[in-house]
Amino acid sequence: MSNTNIRGLAKELKLSIGTVSKALRDSYEISEETKQKVFALAKKRNYIPNPYASSLRRKKSNTIGVVIPEVADSFFSHAIKGIGLVAQKKGYHVLIYLTYESLVQEQAIMKDFASGRVDGVLMSVSTETKTHKHIAELMSKNIPIVFFDRVIEEAATAKVITDDFDSSYKATCHLIKQGCKQISYLSISKHLGISNKRMEGFKKALADHKIPLTHSSIVHCCNDGDENYEQLKKLMKQKKRPDGVVASVEKLTPPVYLVCQELRISIPQQLKIISFSNLETAPILNPSLTTITQPAFSMGETAATILFKTIEHKHYQLKNENIVVPSQMIIRESSL
Amino acid sequence: MSNTNIRGLAKELKLSIGTVSKALRDSYEISEETKQKVFALAKKRNYIPNPYASSLRRKKSNTIGVVIPEVADSFFSHAIKGIGLVAQKKGYHVLIYLTYESLVQEQAIMKDFASGRVDGVLMSVSTETKTHKHIAELMSKNIPIVFFDRVIEEAATAKVITDDFDSSYKATCHLIKQGCKQISYLSISKHLGISNKRMEGFKKALADHKIPLTHSSIVHCCNDGDENYEQLKKLMKQKKRPDGVVASVEKLTPPVYLVCQELRISIPQQLKIISFSNLETAPILNPSLTTITQPAFSMGETAATILFKTIEHKHYQLKNENIVVPSQMIIRESSL
Repeated sequence: MSNTNIRGLAKELKLSIGTVSKALRDSYEISEETKQKVFALAKKRNYIPNPYASSLRRKKSNTIGVVIPEVADSFFSHAIKGIGLVAQKKGYHVLIYLTYESLVQEQAIMKDFASGRVDGVLMSVSTETKTHKHIAELMSKNIPIVFFDRVIEEAATAKVITDDFDSSYKATCHLIKQGCKQISYLSISKHLGISNKRMEGFKKALADHKIPLTHSSIVHCCNDGDENYEQLKKLMKQKKRPDGVVASVEKLTPPVYLVCQELRISIPQQLKIISFSNLETAPILNPSLTTITQPAFSMGETAATILFKTIEHKHYQLKNENIVVPSQMIIRESSL
Repeated sequence: MSNTNIRGLAKELKLSIGTVSKALRDSYEISEETKQKVFALAKKRNYIPNPYASSLRRKKSNTIGVVIPEVADSFFSHAIKGIGLVAQKKGYHVLIYLTYESLVQEQAIMKDFASGRVDGVLMSVSTETKTHKHIAELMSKNIPIVFFDRVIEEAATAKVITDDFDSSYKATCHLIKQGCKQISYLSISKHLGISNKRMEGFKKALADHKIPLTHSSIVHCCNDGDENYEQLKKLMKQKKRPDGVVASVEKLTPPVYLVCQELRISIPQQLKIISFSNLETAPILNPSLTTITQPAFSMGETAATILFKTIEHKHYQLKNENIVVPSQMIIRESSL
């Protein structure tokens, strides 16, 4: 529990309250040396910033909004942890808004932000988001926004992404090397940038190995688990069924396992699978799952750090840039 | 996409805008028959409420806050879906606040709410929450709060819970029936009501079967995955190691599986395990996991429905009551 406040820290350090306050906010006006002294004592005295009090002083909301499609995906739960860590250090609240993959919800949330509820926004768009007028409107109100993972290419702001094309290319090459001749790519959306980039990486790998595309190479799945299950069952009941699967998001993996259980198709002997996933249970699945693991925590942390640069320094303009944090392929039994 | 508004619905139904608006908010002033007509047309015309517009009209925040310890637990992701569904129908925003299992964070969030950011609160407390002054303070500001799952017994308000004692009792009896003689209960917190109730159910089952408690019957775990892994490894390396485990929350299960993999202890032959869990991957783990599955979606839905009763009808006072929604034991390979 916290037993000190900024006043206490300032007294002990023989610094002004303003200096300590700025140092704690990592202000560019304060020297690195002073900041280190302040941080060290704050840690020692277990100082916890009080976001409510500092919000009243500065007349800001002291809040950032995080807009994501869902929390069931472990990519987002890890990214939120990274965001939370940065926000906590800055003494900011994090509000999480879910779009449930709906563009209409996303538009309503953007309107809500326009009323000044938050000082900045971190966002991963819905599978439905094709237009980006709602984003442009928010940006025109000078509310800074940084995208992570699922980005709007056209938005002139910072975007923290992973190497979707390359990692999907590598994953597909891995399956080909393991002997797969008919691989299906499970797409989660026809509109979503990341799903399409992963699809392009997949197609390029097939082309480079002179494997022709067939009508079951690209399988368009949806956000409904039952529907995906039925579609995948149909796919796996075909005479010429796939012998390899690249799943574009982790929620498409359990239905593949369950269909294989039901149809007694053994993984990896009869079907090899690799999934974009941050599932904690990947190593204890039956069989353990080969994953392309995104640096979710680090992507959240990076996006939040960039956002705070502009929230804290009004003169700092967000660049229109892509920050790419590479993913990692972790090979386990499901693809061997 | 939505192509109609309340005005359009009212015109088509030959009703006043006020009536349609109240019907959509499920107001007690409107007859069931009229509500059904309005709902049916709203669905047909794909009407989506605009929370921003109605907030401006009524000068309310049109927002509810959901305070939970984390989103990585699938109980919470399902509960949020239930809450979201109710809120969406009412045209409300849902803001999710994470405490990261910290009482200090929880207190800061309560203070933020006191400024009127939300019209009502749904809450599941942190593992650290022993005191409840911060809750009482919020309630004294007339901001309604409904607890779900992790409740504060002393708070005079509605609490939506599951049958923690009974389901843990049943789970333990199941392991005893399967032949376990030395069962460990993995607790997540010494303070948390649900963890203790589940522990009491466990103890009662042992007592009823005349199985004595040993020093390794109750294992106190924490929120750090690595620490839990090390502690469980020590436990399983003991000469008289447990032959059964009841895990009080799902995050304690992967470390048990991983420790068993490492020490080559086979589940369920040498160790049977049952876990409170809503994990989607439970049926595809190696081996598939026996779970006590909480009615997470329904608990969220119920808690939100109760909260909206008081948000929408100022004369409606929340009762000091427990609403119990029973859990379900799903037996799979890990306990057979």
